[in-house]
This record gives sequence, structure tokens and C-alpha cells, in this order.
Amino acid sequence: MIRFSSSAQKMRSSEIRKLMKLAADPSLISFAGGMPANSLFPIDTLDEIYASLSVQAKQTAMQYGPTEGLPPLVKGLKEYLASKGFNLEGQDLLVTTGAQQAINVIAKVMLDPDDIVITEYPSFIGALAAFKSYQAITEGVPMDDEGIIISKLEEALDKHKSRVKLVYLSPYFHNPAGIIYSESRKNAVLEVLRKRKICLLEDDPYGELYFDQADKVLTQPIKTMVNDESVPICYAGSFSKIFGPGIRLGWLLAPTEIIDKCQLCKQSMDACSSSFTQVLATEFLKESRLEKYLQLLRPVYARKAQIMLDSLKEHMPKGVSWTTPKGGFYIWVTLPEHMDSSDVFSKSIEGGAAFVIGSAFDPAGKRNNSFRLAFSHTPEDMIAKGVEIVADAVKASL
Amino acid sequence: MIRFSSSAQKMRSSEIRKLMKLAADPSLISFAGGMPANSLFPIDTLDEIYASLSVQAKQTAMQYGPTEGLPPLVKGLKEYLASKGFNLEGQDLLVTTGAQQAINVIAKVMLDPDDIVITEYPSFIGALAAFKSYQAITEGVPMDDEGIIISKLEEALDKHKSRVKLVYLSPYFHNPAGIIYSESRKNAVLEVLRKRKICLLEDDPYGELYFDQADKVLTQPIKTMVNDESVPICYAGSFSKIFGPGIRLGWLLAPTEIIDKCQLCKQSMDACSSSFTQVLATEFLKESRLEKYLQLLRPVYARKAQIMLDSLKEHMPKGVSWTTPKGGFYIWVTLPEHMDSSDVFSKSIEGGAAFVIGSAFDPAGKRNNSFRLAFSHTPEDMIAKGVEIVADAVKASL
Repeated sequence: MIRFSSSAQKMRSSEIRKLMKLAADPSLISFAGGMPANSLFPIDTLDEIYASLSVQAKQTAMQYGPTEGLPPLVKGLKEYLASKGFNLEGQDLLVTTGAQQAINVIAKVMLDPDDIVITEYPSFIGALAAFKSYQAITEGVPMDDEGIIISKLEEALDKHKSRVKLVYLSPYFHNPAGIIYSESRKNAVLEVLRKRKICLLEDDPYGELYFDQADKVLTQPIKTMVNDESVPICYAGSFSKIFGPGIRLGWLLAPTEIIDKCQLCKQSMDACSSSFTQVLATEFLKESRLEKYLQLLRPVYARKAQIMLDSLKEHMPKGVSWTTPKGGFYIWVTLPEHMDSSDVFSKSIEGGAAFVIGSAFDPAGKRNNSFRLAFSHTPEDMIAKGVEIVADAVKASL
Repeated sequence: MIRFSSSAQKMRSSEIRKLMKLAADPSLISFAGGMPANSLFPIDTLDEIYASLSVQAKQTAMQYGPTEGLPPLVKGLKEYLASKGFNLEGQDLLVTTGAQQAINVIAKVMLDPDDIVITEYPSFIGALAAFKSYQAITEGVPMDDEGIIISKLEEALDKHKSRVKLVYLSPYFHNPAGIIYSESRKNAVLEVLRKRKICLLEDDPYGELYFDQADKVLTQPIKTMVNDESVPICYAGSFSKIFGPGIRLGWLLAPTEIIDKCQLCKQSMDACSSSFTQVLATEFLKESRLEKYLQLLRPVYARKAQIMLDSLKEHMPKGVSWTTPKGGFYIWVTLPEHMDSSDVFSKSIEGGAAFVIGSAFDPAGKRNNSFRLAFSHTPEDMIAKGVEIVADAVKASL
């Protein structure tokens, strides 16, 4: 009796969501959710910030703010981005309700039904869902250890020509693949996009989380490498992994013409992002708080990744391969072609450990001989045990 | 060179937004924005709440939460809604990023391009923008002092038949009209919707803000009057006017089948609303904090409304009429047919007072012989002076 829109008719609670609910069982060792550990949040800093707020600041925190973001936060973010090498000329910034909203508004202002978005295979589940919610078609292009494979990218662009509205990439400590793009691959991507004048959405929630200072240079965003208007690049960032997802704040840096549309779009989505958490984030960007917190986080994640890598090496059978992350939250495990990670998932859950199956990250929702392990929120002393359980499940499914 | 979606191509920064920017000049006496005064926010209660939070609660506040909302907030809201007479059977609740998002997700799951949404004339600007952003057509039906005019509503429904997907009403201390529906009018609306099996979106951000306890009975939502499934009613509420807009929290109560779609839709919009502000709101619903705050707010807004009504009576020339609110934030002023509130606006701004012109609230964006005065955020001792300036501008435009 209820007549849903054509896009809502296609929305279905996916198999993945059911599995994620299974994976949320607290008795399991979970490598499923892509989130920080609760114990890592900077609660002392938060207390310090709250205690420092004037009554006036708290009143601002409780009030509506401009759709584009509270001016002090916009200023702080612009300074932060400028320090990372972004040229802000001709660009504008929109504070968003998480990077998820940044992706969603770009989808809304760019995509009509049956438009094509080229993504990596595998790709971020939240971005795929946003593109599909506007009835766009997502096509995945495979990656190697240095990023998206250029010849395959060109093939996909040649195949779909002007139906391609957007290329979506996540080049830095990729979710779920865990890899980081090489500089030469970033240059090659840029060249392809320039030639075809295709818009790029560059998603960068994990770039700050390199394990080794020497790899910082690799996290230089593609957008900072462009100083002309030859290719429109929309750059999405987030506080979720560098402060806390619960404040629901991200940002979008893009050509002014695009931000103008995104702002109108966001206005009718949620009017503005929380002023309350924007006031907190503004203070977090001050007095080197962010940098100090990052210095604390990086070795923690590096250690967790190393434990996971060591355990994989120890326990995984031959024929199974995985990526070696230089930062971020994830390791992507690839099984022999004939295997199905759903089988491994069921056995692993029985054994007491959870992860996310590979098809969740396939733009076509099919390929499933792989899975994602998140090491970010699992207590260090549980990682080896959990990996052993997963490896046992793999062996039992061989 | 940038190829926007068909919906984005139609999005334009409206004249209204330019006027709102003019109206934001802090040297003006402003009746423009529909927000609480900063001085009214319950900062002491906020401090008390923050001080009471355990480290664990703060960790939850910094983490992702379920898309549907943090379980303790969902529980608290369900109790609150049950106490207001809602039957929750067959219904589900979605916590949203402000009621604006509740309206937006309903628009996204219900509306295809060229579908028709029947609204009141005048109607809430944020809802109109949301409907239009999905390329739906909004048609306004006039109101009298008791609500939408039933014969005109039936006329509009007859005219558009199955193209009408949704009726959107704001029956309690209407924004911008300031009126409240009579009980008989609510019953008549229900009867029309039942007969035609049209979905209703009932928007209720101001219902708690009655001036006189005796009028509380009028704020009984239409959704509480239905105990069967004869008509699907989606009910949107908000913390914005009863705690603070800056926490960006609202809710949607609707048949489970609709909430399921809305949840999938919200998942790809912003993953979840801020856990941080959800933790604060959960505590605000406890220990009668909300009720105590409302008892403080109601006489303040009642007094402001009375000052504005007295000033209008004193200063407005003949031929100008206005509504007499029994609650909420707004008075709707109607000028003689031939007049244009944009002229009055220009003169009023010169004189030193601002408001929002009528065409902003016209679903067709045309009729402009009216305007909205918000008394909610203007200091009491400025209201009379501001109204005098507006009245002078009206006289000069006659």
C-alpha cells in the first residue's frame, strides 16, 4: 500500500548487514567494524576542552550554525589543509556530517540514474551504498600494491565514455585493501583524468595514520598535486579516525562551483552539522592537540598491524595472500579463486572470531574470495588468537 | 565543464538566501531566524550532564552508533512518545540529524521526479527545499485559523489523483503561520487521508511550546488519533526547540516498513547521527530535565508573543492582519493583496529591523503579500521597537 520511490524500491537490507549484526556479538574477537578502539579516544583532552569553553561558546554549540560550517572550524580546517599542501584558491570548504555525508552530497549533485561511477575493486561499502542510493551504477577496477591499475581504469573509461560521471578513489591506507598509492601511480591517475576531464572524488579518512614517519610523503593527496583547473577534484576528509566518529564531522574541499551546489544540497539534508561537536573539533585543532594525539595513535596502530601480520604469517595456509599496510586500519586477505569467504565467515564465527566478507566491498556485489580484517579496535592481546581462529576456518574451508 | 545531476542543475541559491544574509546583520533588530535565543539554552543543565558522564559514556559518545540511534536514546524517546499517547505497535523509531533529516529521508524514500507533495500554504521552507531536491512538485493548500481548508485539500487531491505521494502538514504552532489545528480539523484531515489512503508526514517541532496549559490538549498529534493501519502517518519531532538546534537531533516515528527504508537511506547519508549529542540528549530526557526546561521556556515565549501582538495592534495600519499564536515562535502577517513584502523588507532593513518575506514559504515561490515575524530570539525589550520599524516600513509601502 505504501508507494516507495524507485530508488527506495531498490534499497534492500543486504546480506552484509545481517552478517555485521552477527559479527557484533560481544563474545567474539572482532575484526569486523572499521572503528577505533573505545580505549583510544582522547577523553582527557575532551574534558580539558569542555572545561575551557565559555558560556558563550556553549551557547554557540547549542545553536544553529551556517550550513557551510562554524566560521572558526572552517578557518581551522583551512589552515590545517593549507599546511598539508592544498592550494585553496578557487576552492571552497564544506563541513559535513562525517565524510559519509561528503560522499553522499557529491553523489546527489553529480549522479542521475544509470550514470556510472568508477571505483576501485574492492571499495568502501559506504561510498558504494551512497552512489547506488541515487541509482548510479558502480564499476570496480582492480588494484595492485601501488593502486588502481591504469590500463584497467582506461579500459573502463573507454567502455562507458560519457556515462562516467565520477571516479571515486581512496588512495591512502585503503578501506578495505589497506594499500597506499605510489607517487607514480597518482601521477598516472591524474594524467588519465586530465585527458578525459573526469571529476575525481578523493576520499582520505586514514592518511594521517601512517606507521612510519618515512611514509608520510606517500600520503600527499592527489588534489595537492594539481594547481590548475584541468581536472575537478573533490577531496573528502574526516575527524572520525583522528578524533572520534561519534562527533560526526568530516569535510569536503572542492571547486567553488561544486561546493555551492553541495551546500544547497546539504541545507535540505540536515541544515547544518552539529554546532556542538564543531565547537569541540575547533578546539581540538588548536594547541597541537591533533598532532599530539596522532603521535599517540600511530605507534598503537602500527603495533596492532604488526601483530596481525605476524599471526597471519604463522597461521594462514599456503595459497592465501594478504596486503601489508603502511598505515590505517585494514588488511585485505585473498583466498584461492574457488573459495567463498562466506563459508569461512560461518566457521570463523563458530570458532569465535568475526570479519567482513569480501563481496561487501565489490561494487558488483559478487566476488567473494577475499575478506577484510580490521586490527584497529581489537585489544592487542586478542589479535593473535583471533587470527588463529580465522586461519583455522580458512583451513577447514579449503 | 562539470556535469551536475538533473536535480542539482535545478538547485539555485535563492533570492531568499540573499535576504537571509542581509537579515543576519547583527546591528538589526531581527525577527528573521526561527531559532531560540542563545540566552535561553540550558547551559547549567548541560554542565551538570557533562559532569555526570562516566568515562565509558564519553567513549560511547565518541564512537559510531547504530544507524537507528543509540539504544538508551531510542528507549528514552519511545517512553516520551508513549507518554504523549502514541501507540508504538507496528511502528518504529529512527533518530535523525535534526527533523530536517527526517523530512529528507521521507522525501528520498517516497518521491520520484514529478511526484506531488501537498503542503499547507504557507509551509516550512526546509521541507519545501527537501521535497524539491528530489524533483517533486509542491502544491500549497490554503489554511484558515483552524488548519488546512478541507475542501481545498480535497480539490488538490482530486486534481492530481495518484500523482500525490505525500501530504505534509505542520499542525502545531505552524511555521510560519503560527496557528494550531482544531480537533475537528484534525479529524477531518484524517478522514480525507483515510478515504484516499495517502501517506501523511506530520511535522511537530513546536508542539511542546504552548503558552497556556489549557491549550495543551490541542497539541495532541494526529498520529496518536489513529490506532489502525488505515493511513500511514510519519511523525517527525525535534530536540531543536526543546533543548538546542546545535545538537542536531530529531526523530521519525513511522510504520516499520517505512522506517526500514529510511534507515537504509540514512545509513548512506551520514551513517548515524552524532553519538556525542545523543548521549547528552539521553540524559536530558532523564530526571524531568526536559519538563523543567519546558516550564521555564513556555512563559518566556508567551511573554514575547504578547509583546509582539500588542505592538502590532499599536503600530500596524488598517488592512494588515496577523495570526494570534497560542504557542511556538511565529506570527504571520498578511498585507493587502496588492502589496509586496519585498518592498517592505527593503524599507524595514533600512529602518533597522528584519523578517522573512512571504514568498519563501509559498510552495510555488510566488505569493508575497505576507511575511513571517519570529519573536523567539529577539530580546524582549527590542520587540516593540522592531515592530514599530516594520510597521513604518509597511506604511511607507502602502
